[in-house]
Amino acid sequence: MPVVGVIGGGQLARMMVPPAVALGIEIRVLAEQEESSARLAATQVGDYRDVDTVRAFAAGCDVITFDHEHVPQDVLRALVADGMSVQPGPDALAAAQDKLHMRERLTALGVPVPTWARITTRDELAQFLADNGGRAVVKTPRGGYDGKGVRVVDRADAADDWLADGAVLAEQLVDFRRELAQLVARRPSGDLRAWPLVETVQKGGVCAEVLAPAPRSSDAVERSAAEIAATVAHGLGVTGVLAVELFETMDGRVLVNELAMRPHNSGHFSIDAAVTSQFEQHLRAVLDWPLGDTELVAPHAVMINVFGGLTDDQIAQALGHQPAAKVHAYGKSPRPGRKAGHVTAMGDDLDDVAYRARAAAAHFDA
Amino acid sequence: MPVVGVIGGGQLARMMVPPAVALGIEIRVLAEQEESSARLAATQVGDYRDVDTVRAFAAGCDVITFDHEHVPQDVLRALVADGMSVQPGPDALAAAQDKLHMRERLTALGVPVPTWARITTRDELAQFLADNGGRAVVKTPRGGYDGKGVRVVDRADAADDWLADGAVLAEQLVDFRRELAQLVARRPSGDLRAWPLVETVQKGGVCAEVLAPAPRSSDAVERSAAEIAATVAHGLGVTGVLAVELFETMDGRVLVNELAMRPHNSGHFSIDAAVTSQFEQHLRAVLDWPLGDTELVAPHAVMINVFGGLTDDQIAQALGHQPAAKVHAYGKSPRPGRKAGHVTAMGDDLDDVAYRARAAAAHFDA
Repeated sequence: MPVVGVIGGGQLARMMVPPAVALGIEIRVLAEQEESSARLAATQVGDYRDVDTVRAFAAGCDVITFDHEHVPQDVLRALVADGMSVQPGPDALAAAQDKLHMRERLTALGVPVPTWARITTRDELAQFLADNGGRAVVKTPRGGYDGKGVRVVDRADAADDWLADGAVLAEQLVDFRRELAQLVARRPSGDLRAWPLVETVQKGGVCAEVLAPAPRSSDAVERSAAEIAATVAHGLGVTGVLAVELFETMDGRVLVNELAMRPHNSGHFSIDAAVTSQFEQHLRAVLDWPLGDTELVAPHAVMINVFGGLTDDQIAQALGHQPAAKVHAYGKSPRPGRKAGHVTAMGDDLDDVAYRARAAAAHFDA
Repeated sequence: MPVVGVIGGGQLARMMVPPAVALGIEIRVLAEQEESSARLAATQVGDYRDVDTVRAFAAGCDVITFDHEHVPQDVLRALVADGMSVQPGPDALAAAQDKLHMRERLTALGVPVPTWARITTRDELAQFLADNGGRAVVKTPRGGYDGKGVRVVDRADAADDWLADGAVLAEQLVDFRRELAQLVARRPSGDLRAWPLVETVQKGGVCAEVLAPAPRSSDAVERSAAEIAATVAHGLGVTGVLAVELFETMDGRVLVNELAMRPHNSGHFSIDAAVTSQFEQHLRAVLDWPLGDTELVAPHAVMINVFGGLTDDQIAQALGHQPAAKVHAYGKSPRPGRKAGHVTAMGDDLDDVAYRARAAAAHFDA
């Protein structure tokens, strides 16, 4: 029985447990705290930044993978030096850990991205604003997610606080028609599989809904997205699941917004609605096992995030009113704005599916 | 977060873990041994026949349910007396624990069963054989499963060894066209849902394949099976999943063969092929939560049992050759004839689905 060690005890690690149970894989989790979302599989609680802690956890695992991309490079490289299989590896993860590094590597691969610049001074930001219509998105290279570390600016002094800590990424404010995500999985041996392109709907900088497949997509957009994701996965040597967040521009181009080298919120629909879920595929990929089919089991699926918390009564009510909806609770203590679960509905008609998913999710509005 | 305690650490408890993770249910298992199939969720190892052991396990659980039907009545009744929710309850389980009691209760409910008799002497068996064409099936009332405790006899002295221990059940040898199974789930509050009727194919007295739905079933057979299962579930007060194993006779009648008051091998197809799996539905039912839809997500599904063991190489080969097949390994040490896992395939065409399921399962032939 292969042993997969997951660093990080969040909901992504939690959602790897069911396919591990199915496939007879032993899953072990290094969690940050006792009451982690993945506590059922937690075999150790400790600091993923401490090389001795991570080494002790990794002993006895056949492969190490991740719930998040924050494990420091020196820790990753120590594991590799020990002969451990680390999937994805340090070089690939470097691009997910630093947005400036990511933009450099994507540009070198010829992948379409928004116009961008490395900014180290107020003057450089002033020049970037002048060149890009007076507005820009500024991002800290590290630590940003779900809208954090991201700022839309129209003044050259608006990033002074961040510049005091080092360089930032400035990007053109893309006039996009919608946001898309292309998920793929890649084995160390190079085999790659893509799920259908999906549309992601953001609210307040956070993913609110995912429509699978992305409705009314042109063949050209679908082809571009698949080619971009394959180029990135092969070019950066990604193993496991890669999520490529994309802008579809008003003039029909596809640009890369962000990358995630792990199962991703935009792929949660696949748990219930694809032949192989992103969590099963991730486990298969990091073990270098053959990848599974990625087709949807229904023409349409809609996934809706639940924030805050899910009480038992709310879950029972949602299940009662929408008996075909699939409710997922992450076992987290409630906190305003916290991603606490999601709901997926599936079926033949997109409007009906979206209605049912939203009706189920509405039971969790505080 | 509700806490469901499962007595027994076999593959049925193991397969309750994924839906518990999805629904945010805490699952705890009382296992017979350290290396149980459900060890990931095992919080205690001990003897389910010992009332103090079971009481200690049950403390802190919201409901107690089962991986098997062997918990003694005195233990079950002690839990009920303590105020614990035990689902299914002792009265219902009594019918699953004793085949003579089961036949008596089914007969009282007017449910069609093979001609049967309670046999306590060789003379009574001689009379039963004389009345039923010279052959009969003899079963021990307790402890039989997967062909154990079952004997086809044509001589009155052929059950002497069992009769030395007490009464046995004698049944007419049914001339059946095929075997079917009707799974339903029932909440304590009475709500009931049925999955599509399935065909079970036995080899050597053990379930080998399940075809969902049962191919080419007449409306009358489907209606009879559904009515029988509902009558049994309501009549015996079953809660959670009830599997009714049935004979379809050559003359188109449906007779009850066996009952199981828990998720059952004939329902494993539902993990991948139904909107709500039997394991999710069981958890919902025992918590008295609303039940989920039971439709198949594809027109046909075929489940094939894997016996002996599944090596990592075999799993990888099966996944590689059948990328749409769903492989399930129960985490058991290999042993000849042991149920070690199963494979499910789904799709539009039954012949194609059966071919793919068998091709995947063939990788596990020793």
